[in-house]
Amino acid sequence: MRDVFVVGTGMIPFGKFPERTLSDLAWPAVKQALGDAGVSAKSVEAVFCGSALGGMLSGQRIMKPLGLTGIPIINVENACSSGSSALRQGWLEIASGSHDIVLVVGAEKLTKFGGGTLPLETEDWEVRQGMVMPAVYAMRAQRYMHEYGLTREQLADVSVKAHDHGALNPNAQIRKRVTREEVLNSRPVADPFTLWHCCPTGDGAAAVVLASAEAMRRYKPDAAVRLAASEVTSGIYTNGFRDMTWAELTARGAELAYEMAGLGAEDIDVAEIHDAFTIAELMYYEAFGFCERGRAYELLASGATSLGGNIVVNPSGGLLSRGHPVGATGVAQAVEVVRQLRGESGAHQVANARVGLTHATGGGISGFDHGACSIHIFTR
Amino acid sequence: MRDVFVVGTGMIPFGKFPERTLSDLAWPAVKQALGDAGVSAKSVEAVFCGSALGGMLSGQRIMKPLGLTGIPIINVENACSSGSSALRQGWLEIASGSHDIVLVVGAEKLTKFGGGTLPLETEDWEVRQGMVMPAVYAMRAQRYMHEYGLTREQLADVSVKAHDHGALNPNAQIRKRVTREEVLNSRPVADPFTLWHCCPTGDGAAAVVLASAEAMRRYKPDAAVRLAASEVTSGIYTNGFRDMTWAELTARGAELAYEMAGLGAEDIDVAEIHDAFTIAELMYYEAFGFCERGRAYELLASGATSLGGNIVVNPSGGLLSRGHPVGATGVAQAVEVVRQLRGESGAHQVANARVGLTHATGGGISGFDHGACSIHIFTR
Repeated sequence: MRDVFVVGTGMIPFGKFPERTLSDLAWPAVKQALGDAGVSAKSVEAVFCGSALGGMLSGQRIMKPLGLTGIPIINVENACSSGSSALRQGWLEIASGSHDIVLVVGAEKLTKFGGGTLPLETEDWEVRQGMVMPAVYAMRAQRYMHEYGLTREQLADVSVKAHDHGALNPNAQIRKRVTREEVLNSRPVADPFTLWHCCPTGDGAAAVVLASAEAMRRYKPDAAVRLAASEVTSGIYTNGFRDMTWAELTARGAELAYEMAGLGAEDIDVAEIHDAFTIAELMYYEAFGFCERGRAYELLASGATSLGGNIVVNPSGGLLSRGHPVGATGVAQAVEVVRQLRGESGAHQVANARVGLTHATGGGISGFDHGACSIHIFTR
Repeated sequence: MRDVFVVGTGMIPFGKFPERTLSDLAWPAVKQALGDAGVSAKSVEAVFCGSALGGMLSGQRIMKPLGLTGIPIINVENACSSGSSALRQGWLEIASGSHDIVLVVGAEKLTKFGGGTLPLETEDWEVRQGMVMPAVYAMRAQRYMHEYGLTREQLADVSVKAHDHGALNPNAQIRKRVTREEVLNSRPVADPFTLWHCCPTGDGAAAVVLASAEAMRRYKPDAAVRLAASEVTSGIYTNGFRDMTWAELTARGAELAYEMAGLGAEDIDVAEIHDAFTIAELMYYEAFGFCERGRAYELLASGATSLGGNIVVNPSGGLLSRGHPVGATGVAQAVEVVRQLRGESGAHQVANARVGLTHATGGGISGFDHGACSIHIFTR
């Protein structure tokens, strides 16, 4: 397999834009990514578009007004990891030698569904019984609190950190700091979660341009970031007992990604991980090996994962603050990490970031773990 | 790139099964394909699932009860070419050396939307104005009739041939022969189309197992079929004049596929092409180079494309008779062609078939050509 590089990044600030179509949301991100790479629309050889709820031919609809037509355009759906699964397909396209310049875009417009919990698949009987995302994560939080003595106050601190970071990020949906008390006193969603424990719904789009080594040298020799690992995997379902406090799928995905990159947890300087709910961030610290099991809050409280720490998690604000327009998230994470490795992140820059990781996990139907998980590692 | 082989095929007879879930539809096809290949669920290394309207995580939902979990499962959407685009992603997975055994499934349940024209994307203003599929194809038919003197009676013969073939295929949705008069006298849809000019809506699923040469020799050395070309491309949009009688996208895709396989139109023994409406089959004869422009009806009337002819088109009955459950179609075409090349097609067997082609084209929003087109060539 050949080396793959990110040579261009683009995204729009996430938010609620009910008056814009999916294409309207996406094309500024695509143009920004192409402009950053110095790649013309005509030079793009294939497009992968991640969207969970964008409807038929999302990628074709986005590319048409930009003139990116007549080339392979393939739409990828993997729930909350749609964008990152599209990125993996783009990676394979270049790694395999099939193409030299590939555009990956993620886009979603959740405001078209109104507010509240996402429109979930109702074929699944557990979802029909009320097993929607906040409920699933709330149960995991309850169990984790029971097993490891985590308190509500400590759990709230995940949200405080996320919003501390997001307040510094001009692309974040929620650019506002919150206190522990504000988190605890916001309206209840699913115990122990209040509103500030949950990521917002919103609209957004992000894009990256991928290139082979040869194309990278042509377009962006000084600022290219290598995509050192690109993995998608799915959950192992079981009807028997499973440990709700352990993110099995992410742990397995992390192992694959570390092996592919030839790197380990100790090498990661910055990580964008899937904090759809506060408890998720803590569980993923452990699944990625950033700390031992049951010690995630200690890691958070030490400041290690905050800006200024040695393994900064979600400098963008993460899903909780930057926002989570489903299909856009995985690509936005890649945009964030690439810009961090290039030193372009301004007020929320991680000092001397050389190795970054992104993690998007989607689904979670029928069981307490997720349906699809995608992990990428980037090096500078 | 490495050689890629089909080592197993499976499909359910297409029809209307409102009481079955998408997973219920798909798992018999998957089990049949795995059984045919002699590959256990545990040996499958990655899954691609094509579905246009199946909802989030279609592939994960299908694979869960079969125990195909813990591996990459990626869902691909490209409207009517969703299944064949998934097949192309499966092809790349093996061609690139990324995996050795890959399962590709296509599944769709259209009965959940009720009857009539498919639920189309309404973001597109031309669709909102009534530019739905029967209308788009009817205008192309009108123009073709004007340019080349094709009559309504001649156009009806495409449907007669399709149903002659489908009546022999136990997997066809409509197993019933129709006469030219029955076609002409069925209820009007969009002039010149009556009901029998249009493919039915329905439910279905199909699956193939792909393997590297090494894995093929392990599982199916005597009955493997090589996937010699695998292409997806998209339409070139223009606001200016375009020739409505010429299927530009398919012609361009055919050129790419012929080049990739090192074969030409004259080598094709059997083809499953995208006859969503009668006129489509005639236009695609010309786009694939099976005959000169304007001469498609002559080719049909000669019997060359009927069973017993030298380039049999849609021995399965095609979309018109076998049916067109969107995401399942491209994979079902592959199942049909592989079985033809293996001599397993019983009453609708094409004699001495050695080279086969499949063609699925999807979309068609904003303009008279399609959004996505996927072409595969198989050799024995």
